[in-house]
Amino acid sequence: MNQEHVAGPTAQVAAFVTECDYASLPAAVVREAKRSILNWLGVAIGAANEEPVDIVLRLAREIGCAEQVTVFGRRERVDALHGALINGMSSHIFDFDDTHLRTVIHPSAPVAPVVFALAEWKGGAPKDCLTAFVLGAEMEMRIGNAVYPEHYDVGWHITGTTGVFGAAIAASKLLGQNQQTATRAIGLAATQAAGLREMFGTMAKPFHPGKAAMDGLRSALLSGWGFTSAEQGIEGRRAFGHVLSTKFDAEEVVGDLGARWELLQNSYKPYPCGIVIHPTIDGVLELRQQGVTHEQVASVSARVHPLVQELTGKRRPQTGLEGKFSVFHCAAVGLIDGQVGQAQFSDARVRDPLVIALRDRVELTLDDSMREDECVIEARLSDGRVVEHHVMHARGSLSNPLDDDALDTKFLGLTTPVIGDRKSAEVIAWVRDMEHQASIDGLLNIAIP
Amino acid sequence: MNQEHVAGPTAQVAAFVTECDYASLPAAVVREAKRSILNWLGVAIGAANEEPVDIVLRLAREIGCAEQVTVFGRRERVDALHGALINGMSSHIFDFDDTHLRTVIHPSAPVAPVVFALAEWKGGAPKDCLTAFVLGAEMEMRIGNAVYPEHYDVGWHITGTTGVFGAAIAASKLLGQNQQTATRAIGLAATQAAGLREMFGTMAKPFHPGKAAMDGLRSALLSGWGFTSAEQGIEGRRAFGHVLSTKFDAEEVVGDLGARWELLQNSYKPYPCGIVIHPTIDGVLELRQQGVTHEQVASVSARVHPLVQELTGKRRPQTGLEGKFSVFHCAAVGLIDGQVGQAQFSDARVRDPLVIALRDRVELTLDDSMREDECVIEARLSDGRVVEHHVMHARGSLSNPLDDDALDTKFLGLTTPVIGDRKSAEVIAWVRDMEHQASIDGLLNIAIP
Repeated sequence: MNQEHVAGPTAQVAAFVTECDYASLPAAVVREAKRSILNWLGVAIGAANEEPVDIVLRLAREIGCAEQVTVFGRRERVDALHGALINGMSSHIFDFDDTHLRTVIHPSAPVAPVVFALAEWKGGAPKDCLTAFVLGAEMEMRIGNAVYPEHYDVGWHITGTTGVFGAAIAASKLLGQNQQTATRAIGLAATQAAGLREMFGTMAKPFHPGKAAMDGLRSALLSGWGFTSAEQGIEGRRAFGHVLSTKFDAEEVVGDLGARWELLQNSYKPYPCGIVIHPTIDGVLELRQQGVTHEQVASVSARVHPLVQELTGKRRPQTGLEGKFSVFHCAAVGLIDGQVGQAQFSDARVRDPLVIALRDRVELTLDDSMREDECVIEARLSDGRVVEHHVMHARGSLSNPLDDDALDTKFLGLTTPVIGDRKSAEVIAWVRDMEHQASIDGLLNIAIP
Repeated sequence: MNQEHVAGPTAQVAAFVTECDYASLPAAVVREAKRSILNWLGVAIGAANEEPVDIVLRLAREIGCAEQVTVFGRRERVDALHGALINGMSSHIFDFDDTHLRTVIHPSAPVAPVVFALAEWKGGAPKDCLTAFVLGAEMEMRIGNAVYPEHYDVGWHITGTTGVFGAAIAASKLLGQNQQTATRAIGLAATQAAGLREMFGTMAKPFHPGKAAMDGLRSALLSGWGFTSAEQGIEGRRAFGHVLSTKFDAEEVVGDLGARWELLQNSYKPYPCGIVIHPTIDGVLELRQQGVTHEQVASVSARVHPLVQELTGKRRPQTGLEGKFSVFHCAAVGLIDGQVGQAQFSDARVRDPLVIALRDRVELTLDDSMREDECVIEARLSDGRVVEHHVMHARGSLSNPLDDDALDTKFLGLTTPVIGDRKSAEVIAWVRDMEHQASIDGLLNIAIP
């Protein structure tokens, strides 16, 4: 066998993406794609009026951007590239989007906005949008698996670096490109892969998936018009897998293509804060369900995995954003408010004396034998009683995924303040039946105020 | 001393860039800046009609790009971001732009287009353009020094990865930003640093400096409107210097700021081909000056550094692009044509039977004791005579830099076919007196067909 004719990962990915069609997708994958898209639309619409969006819309206005596509949750329209940028960024602002737990990739943010921008701009049936989304997200997560954890550990924000592949592949699919053109789109994506973890805690973090979306879309557009790039963008000696990582396992990219679907491993956060805090929040909400009120509580103790302290041990958060990384704030505000949504992470809520007083009475017990999605919560009441609850698997974990009703509730909480309850309900209905919708126009008309 | 108050490299760079003004620039630096800009304009205008430019102009047209700034060498106008992209890309298409030999960074391609696009769009005096260009290019090269050679060796195209810093810094300066805003522009640049050597030999290579220019300009615009990023984009633990390189020497970034100027180390290629071939070309052109004609020559032998064979040993190039990496083609066509410019790298010239016949009679003698910029050329004539010449330092090397006349000749060769000889001469005159020009309009009117 001639070694030169053994196709490498990039060629195999391009071939698979070119050939795979909607009929090849298992029903469970289509269902998870729609759940991912609904969750993505919720976080994008919910954050549409945040400051980073205002600033990038100013940029679009100043450069005289054409009005080609929808900015979800806003009245403004921008060109397709800026649509990908803004809708990709907005959906990551609350850090409330979906998570591929194995790699901590947020799969939808760089991919979904490209699919919708391109479909609105150049046309594309909703069923084809689903196929493009599935393939883009799938390859993004597989490329992530190939380099994780070394790639992440050294400091890459993996949602940015792998997201650009997902974006380019989704666009390439929706544009109906052939294998050579898809290969070149992947090469152009590889050479734009970027995003540093140093930016966490700043607007540059949500900028990463938006930028990946824009760059990936541009990659596919350029390759479609004849722009060339290297043929081995993923695996070449001076390409992504070796330059951005000390580990590259090609089998993770191409093993069982079409048989194993990473999208089935996607998960959705019930609370817009650090994921290791979620079992503790489940615990305090359950205590509250059992009738425990914050007025009764003398102290709260949570037995948790040691990572909870390391990642979210902020004792005295000063801002809403810092509150998202304080297990103490989350436990207190959850017990007081009975819910933990974006409203619980305003600066005012973090500075509320009542919240602070309870927060100071929350203690952690670190226990190596606990799983990361597990927690034993114990409230000591002022009358001396002790109430305890054991959370085996946090809501939103793979062992206890959010069901459709919970996703709907999350969606409505995010979108109702922006587009109202009627349109919010219509968006849910549209996405749930997406593969049967005649055109995406039906969505675009209701996903804005 | 409180360690928290010792400013790191990013803060020091931002402070220096904010404070340094035109009056602080040594005359030699201003002169070299003008030489760099002239050379850059020449290669940008010369390649303005190449295919990559056509494709990106198509992209700009399709997304409904506004007409804000000049594409050098073309009649079309695009928005400021695409102006930076296209003018940065075109200037690297011929691989004939300037080179910082220590790092192989091509300093002007990512920086100059940002300065001109921004000045045309938002206003900016030519003198301020010079200051912004100097500071952007200076920091780009210094950041390159800090990570070279490990960063390059692993596979980064250093012109792309450091270029985005240069672009952001130049834009930040021309926009008159303060230290905090400049710091954030640098952070946004850091998190977009990209470009892989795997792309060499494809259109994606010149795309890198163009993309760096666009991303750097966007970084400064966004930071100016309040977009946040990390404060230690260069040196932070999860930032550029540590994520994209195993070596980071902060002193290279900030040592002797304002006293040592890397721009004085910039160099200009006399021939549009691999730099290690240049001594051999000098040699054959000298033989021709001495009266040797290709009809007389039985064989040619060049004693050179072994890298010449390794990097440019292509025996039978098939295309013009391959000819740029064939010392044999270059020696033959130089002896026949008496010059080595872009015309000597057409596909037709590479396939000319006369050139091929002579090419096959060129031999290398590899000699470790030769410098890379040195060559002993020897022609054996059909009458038995042997003519020899020793090139001590190739033209364009730091020891034998191109003088202004040679730069003018190079410029005219590139631009005359695109904008004509009259305008070409006017551009030279404009740039040579750039610090005294009233506005850049005078340049923009003559740098297009």
